[in-house]
Amino acid sequence: MTWTNTSDRALRARAEAVIPGGMYGHQSVMLLPDDYPQFFSRGSGPYLWDADGNRYIDYLCGYGPSLFGYGVEAIDQAYVRRMSQGDTLTGPAEVMVELAEAFTAQVTHADWAMFCKNGTDATTMALMVARNHTQKKTIVRARGAYHGAAPWCTPLSLGVTTEDRANQIFYDYNDVESLEAAVAAAGSDLAAIFASPIKHDTFVDQERPTTAYATRARELCDEHGALLIVDDVRAGFRLARDCSWSLVGVQPDLSTWGKAIANGHPISALLGSEKARGAAAFVYVTGSYWFSAAPMAAALETLKHIRETDYLETNLALGKRLRSGLDEAAGRHGFALRQTGPEELPLIMFEEDADMAKGYFWCNALIRRGVYFHPWHNMFFSAAMTEADIDFTLEVADESFKLLKAAGPLEPVAKLQMAHHAIHSIQPL
Amino acid sequence: MTWTNTSDRALRARAEAVIPGGMYGHQSVMLLPDDYPQFFSRGSGPYLWDADGNRYIDYLCGYGPSLFGYGVEAIDQAYVRRMSQGDTLTGPAEVMVELAEAFTAQVTHADWAMFCKNGTDATTMALMVARNHTQKKTIVRARGAYHGAAPWCTPLSLGVTTEDRANQIFYDYNDVESLEAAVAAAGSDLAAIFASPIKHDTFVDQERPTTAYATRARELCDEHGALLIVDDVRAGFRLARDCSWSLVGVQPDLSTWGKAIANGHPISALLGSEKARGAAAFVYVTGSYWFSAAPMAAALETLKHIRETDYLETNLALGKRLRSGLDEAAGRHGFALRQTGPEELPLIMFEEDADMAKGYFWCNALIRRGVYFHPWHNMFFSAAMTEADIDFTLEVADESFKLLKAAGPLEPVAKLQMAHHAIHSIQPL
Repeated sequence: MTWTNTSDRALRARAEAVIPGGMYGHQSVMLLPDDYPQFFSRGSGPYLWDADGNRYIDYLCGYGPSLFGYGVEAIDQAYVRRMSQGDTLTGPAEVMVELAEAFTAQVTHADWAMFCKNGTDATTMALMVARNHTQKKTIVRARGAYHGAAPWCTPLSLGVTTEDRANQIFYDYNDVESLEAAVAAAGSDLAAIFASPIKHDTFVDQERPTTAYATRARELCDEHGALLIVDDVRAGFRLARDCSWSLVGVQPDLSTWGKAIANGHPISALLGSEKARGAAAFVYVTGSYWFSAAPMAAALETLKHIRETDYLETNLALGKRLRSGLDEAAGRHGFALRQTGPEELPLIMFEEDADMAKGYFWCNALIRRGVYFHPWHNMFFSAAMTEADIDFTLEVADESFKLLKAAGPLEPVAKLQMAHHAIHSIQPL
Repeated sequence: MTWTNTSDRALRARAEAVIPGGMYGHQSVMLLPDDYPQFFSRGSGPYLWDADGNRYIDYLCGYGPSLFGYGVEAIDQAYVRRMSQGDTLTGPAEVMVELAEAFTAQVTHADWAMFCKNGTDATTMALMVARNHTQKKTIVRARGAYHGAAPWCTPLSLGVTTEDRANQIFYDYNDVESLEAAVAAAGSDLAAIFASPIKHDTFVDQERPTTAYATRARELCDEHGALLIVDDVRAGFRLARDCSWSLVGVQPDLSTWGKAIANGHPISALLGSEKARGAAAFVYVTGSYWFSAAPMAAALETLKHIRETDYLETNLALGKRLRSGLDEAAGRHGFALRQTGPEELPLIMFEEDADMAKGYFWCNALIRRGVYFHPWHNMFFSAAMTEADIDFTLEVADESFKLLKAAGPLEPVAKLQMAHHAIHSIQPL
């Protein structure tokens, strides 16, 4: 079947009339290569079908939620079963307690759990709990790290005030001196250090945390009576069956979770240690659907899959196969890739591609051939993927390297240049 | 069957270990009469069953979402059908465009829609859009009105900084002079006036908006180039098949929606007029599940029910029957009720009951007899309720008035006194 985008273009025109700018947020394809579809019709296992019926091996996995693949029967059935008894009622169901018990049993540092809807809910609650616990204001966090899209943390500054961003000091991820300087600048007002589990910022190379950095963050929090917060919304359960920083032997006081915890059903969570329980009990946080039972039933089943299957080892093996295969294929055509971060959360960019023209060309060739890669955001695996999916991806990648080589010198990506210019002209905060 | 709460107490003990304070947010029963159940097992139509199997006619309706009753087959089937094709994918499905089209067709002032998860998401986006549109900061809003639980608006101040609450000026609902004074105090910095569709604050009498107040809010926004925001999260589609202020002939620039729009499935929305489209297109707001297709399919089906059934007329008739029946029953036993606000969103308190002891005693008698009333939060009807449900409620109410009379003088409600004291000792903002 030939790749087409007629239906997608028609839907975009309709969307343009009733949605500002045609789409918003992280799923807008505004800054992706030109042929990326905006609208999808279906997902199943590792695959995604766009509005025109083109099939993709999906390395975005819904930007993280699809940990076991789309439409896992046991998880979706748990959702539907609970929904048929009652979902959004006037109070929570027993499953809320069961889920809090399961989570605190699963995550070493956690003694309690609070459930919410967005990753941003969880990170904002973490910030409030830390401020309430310490009765201090200043949050120290890494420059460029994403912690959600509320006024205090959204990456762009439009509609945001300077007061919304007050009481925050920034450090460079993995840079102990920079972290120490930020904490020193907080003086006696340190409420918390926020850390991503790995550096998974967009547009730049990823990094695992160094033990020195993670350990120092823990020490500094202890010295100041502040709370250490690991924001595991994006990477949680994708690197470990515990908080991601268990891999470097550091336990936070608070951790934030979302995306993969219910394999796509809408729930997020804040987990905390005993120390923070009192402060958490008295912040007033809530939402219309935070106590809904069906997503909790789905999360409970997902946690069972996390405990009882080898999804983690599967995803790592797939990640290694993809990484080495891509390096080989790139080398055959005279290209060098920058594949950074853990194999399970790949970010793939090109060497000698400061304006990203190679990456955009190559990704656009991949998308037209049935592989959904992202040129500047970390990607994900689902345990529904097989070696055959990786091998198909490698074939398509090889073909796309060939096309890239044949294309010769490329123009810079106009939409990226425009965005860069726009962002720098509007970011006063 | 005798009313019991053994299972509920056992669940509360388990919850206490793994959830801070045992529960949080608006569904915590901490400030409700002692016998209110915390955990529920099932919902169907107008009824709710608690963890012990006691059945209630539910006048909270999940705190709003259940507009047509729990488990409406056509709506839940729309959810499941879309879920089985794909829910949280790497991009939105066609249903997102269909829903934005349906919403803008339904709500007079709306030219565009953005979807999110919490009511708080919608109100926070409204605030950001208004600030981006005007390039000004100050929000004028009613004292005591609930607009969500983010740091800028959550009712308690624990974990909140003074900077989080900056750039807000308060007025008294329905008080034109007070509104004018707040706007004057904003000087040349007015970004928006926020208004609840009715005064539906907790613990105090409700009020419909006066035409003078609503009209003046519109005028003041126009004079200052500011945006008028009606927060219809709680009352939307419960007073009108349009924005609630259509009843007073005033069109806002932005309106916020949630709860009833998908009959309990997790979705909320910001709707806006043409004027605000450009500003909305450039605020960066997003969430992991904001583009999920299944809740959109449920919302589309709910909108169809809103257009094609007489739910609104049914709920009003039920509300009138309940209100007049309760007044009669109270009178028979020598009590006088304060039933305020629209009949469809009743708030029921007692005259001569400043410490709420009568209300608590009476509600506790009702709950043990199968009627879920709330002593200080507005209540809701679902179109699944019948006259027989109302009549059963009136019988139970009559019996409970009799018990209240027999009880003689009551002690003040200790938990309310403690909460009042705690709130006043911690509210520095």
